[in-house]
Amino acid sequence: MDTLKRKSYKIGNNHSPVYISEDSAAFVKTWRHHIGSHKTRNVFVLLDENVEKSCPDILNLFFNEVNSKLYVKRMSGGEKLKTWNHASEICDELSALKADRSWVMVSIGGGTLSDLVGFTASIYKRGISCVFLPTSLMAMIDASIGGKNALNQGILKNQIGTYYFSEFIFVYPPFLQSLDKSELKSGYAELIKHALLHSSKSLWNKVLKQGIGVLPDMKMLADAIRVKMKIVQQDPFEKHQRLFLNFGHSFGHAIESYYNDSGQRITHGEAVAMGMQFALFLSAELELIRVEAANGFQMYIHKEFPFPKNLKFNDFLPYLHHDKKILHGKHRIILFKGFGHFTVEYLDIKKLEETYDLFIKGIA
Amino acid sequence: MDTLKRKSYKIGNNHSPVYISEDSAAFVKTWRHHIGSHKTRNVFVLLDENVEKSCPDILNLFFNEVNSKLYVKRMSGGEKLKTWNHASEICDELSALKADRSWVMVSIGGGTLSDLVGFTASIYKRGISCVFLPTSLMAMIDASIGGKNALNQGILKNQIGTYYFSEFIFVYPPFLQSLDKSELKSGYAELIKHALLHSSKSLWNKVLKQGIGVLPDMKMLADAIRVKMKIVQQDPFEKHQRLFLNFGHSFGHAIESYYNDSGQRITHGEAVAMGMQFALFLSAELELIRVEAANGFQMYIHKEFPFPKNLKFNDFLPYLHHDKKILHGKHRIILFKGFGHFTVEYLDIKKLEETYDLFIKGIA
Repeated sequence: MDTLKRKSYKIGNNHSPVYISEDSAAFVKTWRHHIGSHKTRNVFVLLDENVEKSCPDILNLFFNEVNSKLYVKRMSGGEKLKTWNHASEICDELSALKADRSWVMVSIGGGTLSDLVGFTASIYKRGISCVFLPTSLMAMIDASIGGKNALNQGILKNQIGTYYFSEFIFVYPPFLQSLDKSELKSGYAELIKHALLHSSKSLWNKVLKQGIGVLPDMKMLADAIRVKMKIVQQDPFEKHQRLFLNFGHSFGHAIESYYNDSGQRITHGEAVAMGMQFALFLSAELELIRVEAANGFQMYIHKEFPFPKNLKFNDFLPYLHHDKKILHGKHRIILFKGFGHFTVEYLDIKKLEETYDLFIKGIA
Repeated sequence: MDTLKRKSYKIGNNHSPVYISEDSAAFVKTWRHHIGSHKTRNVFVLLDENVEKSCPDILNLFFNEVNSKLYVKRMSGGEKLKTWNHASEICDELSALKADRSWVMVSIGGGTLSDLVGFTASIYKRGISCVFLPTSLMAMIDASIGGKNALNQGILKNQIGTYYFSEFIFVYPPFLQSLDKSELKSGYAELIKHALLHSSKSLWNKVLKQGIGVLPDMKMLADAIRVKMKIVQQDPFEKHQRLFLNFGHSFGHAIESYYNDSGQRITHGEAVAMGMQFALFLSAELELIRVEAANGFQMYIHKEFPFPKNLKFNDFLPYLHHDKKILHGKHRIILFKGFGHFTVEYLDIKKLEETYDLFIKGIA
């Protein structure tokens, strides 16, 4: 792996900040600052075994200089991780190790692993410390940041979860080199969303210029992370502007659940990209943004993440009913008004269905 | 039930206050104030079926005037409620009902039911509102207050849990009339603890005068609740003085787990009362309080809750190892220095064992 020393970044205040560095020694320094150097703080690492395959020396790389006893559990990342059973299994293992509240849990993997670790850390003995080392683009710029974790409940995505902040997040860009194309692309969907949330066009233009699926540089990672971090710090418990981070996600989650449930695997990013396309169309329909502008964004996303012409509203409707953003029976939809400008509308199914029919005609 | 109109109490600020009233109409008023009067806020009630047996009209009594659709699940209170499986089952039922974040969960029962409801409300869709109607003395003055909830993990008590505050707690003293003697007595163990935590002797003297196991009046309930509420408000996440509320509980939980695991059911209160006796003895041994004073408190508790002479340190030692108050391998023990004055000491097993041997000789 490339460990050229470049600039490193710290984003956020001392409450759950994100560090970006290509130097693993910076991790040890960060660990000592946030966790301390006590031998007595044992560490329980959840390690994605696929990450270890592409970087076999990974534990040494980060923990050789950390003065703690390490317990390592290897798991294979993916949505199937996010179950009660896995959380319960980890609690059992912690109990068997007589883990007390001084222990630290670490996740080295993608967003599904940090979801599992964050949730488990939040409930074991009413909360122990955790640290995230995200290894996918999606986890680096989105999933690992902001204290939201979740488990799935059967086929329903993210029905269970808590708000619980990790001590810090350490983003090590060399991990991105071992991602396969589809994983990297999946992360770009969230990057596009962050670009739309950015108050200037700069991040969007950078994505356009660079193209989707190319390894992002540290500056681009830092810009995307700053967008999320700023919103989370202003509204940690999702009462107001944090809702905007769900842009494309109501439809995205429903579409993702539908496809996965019917055996056609799609990535989270693909689903979110589809959701954003419909949300952009809807924003124009409701005259929140000019049709031409919405169309431009929508078509750019469509080019990289083609919306399936044969997807019917009724296919994903049942999953929409379980969206966490339903309030009093109306669907809370995030709509786009321009860079950094979003709004929340409560829409009923009929309006959504009518607009979807127009949208899909436009695609076909 | 007696519904004479006496004075009612509100304890705490608007964040999770406790109301005490013998008038069920006051509940409706409180509900409207904290929850609102929207028809669209559906209510999922967890109701202890034994409470319903002694008060068959209970749902009408409280919810007849509440303008919401009610879903009721009846369960039987007790430690066996506090499992992952029950929490998961309730989440499944909420999902099946398409419950959104506007729903409110209500617990009508003892501390085990409010633990289950509090935990489940805290994780379902990352948190929905909950309200507690405690029906046991222990739940009224202790378990339902302060936002701590817990599940057991196999034989290990309270290993899993979150901090999550209910919207409000409504204490309806007529419930106490249908408690059996042992349940009422169990609650008195926590009342004694609160009396020791009170900065004046007044609550202790009242307990002495009235005797353990007698129905407490509203003033006594209010005094005990105020003690807990004050401490919780100063230190919600148990960093400092809230630790003192665990007085007697490290030993108590271990003793309770040991007895229940070996098939000899004892109440939580009996276990805590035993734990307090040893903790008082330990406080004198460490010269934090005069031997005569500690002895006086200890003997009074022993009279009502006899400490079993044949209980060996090694019997409950294995359970002590799983106490949440262990840090860096040392046992964090709460010790008594005088009314309202406590301290935390970190003691190793050897010291605890030696002192226990002296203690048990004194009992025999």
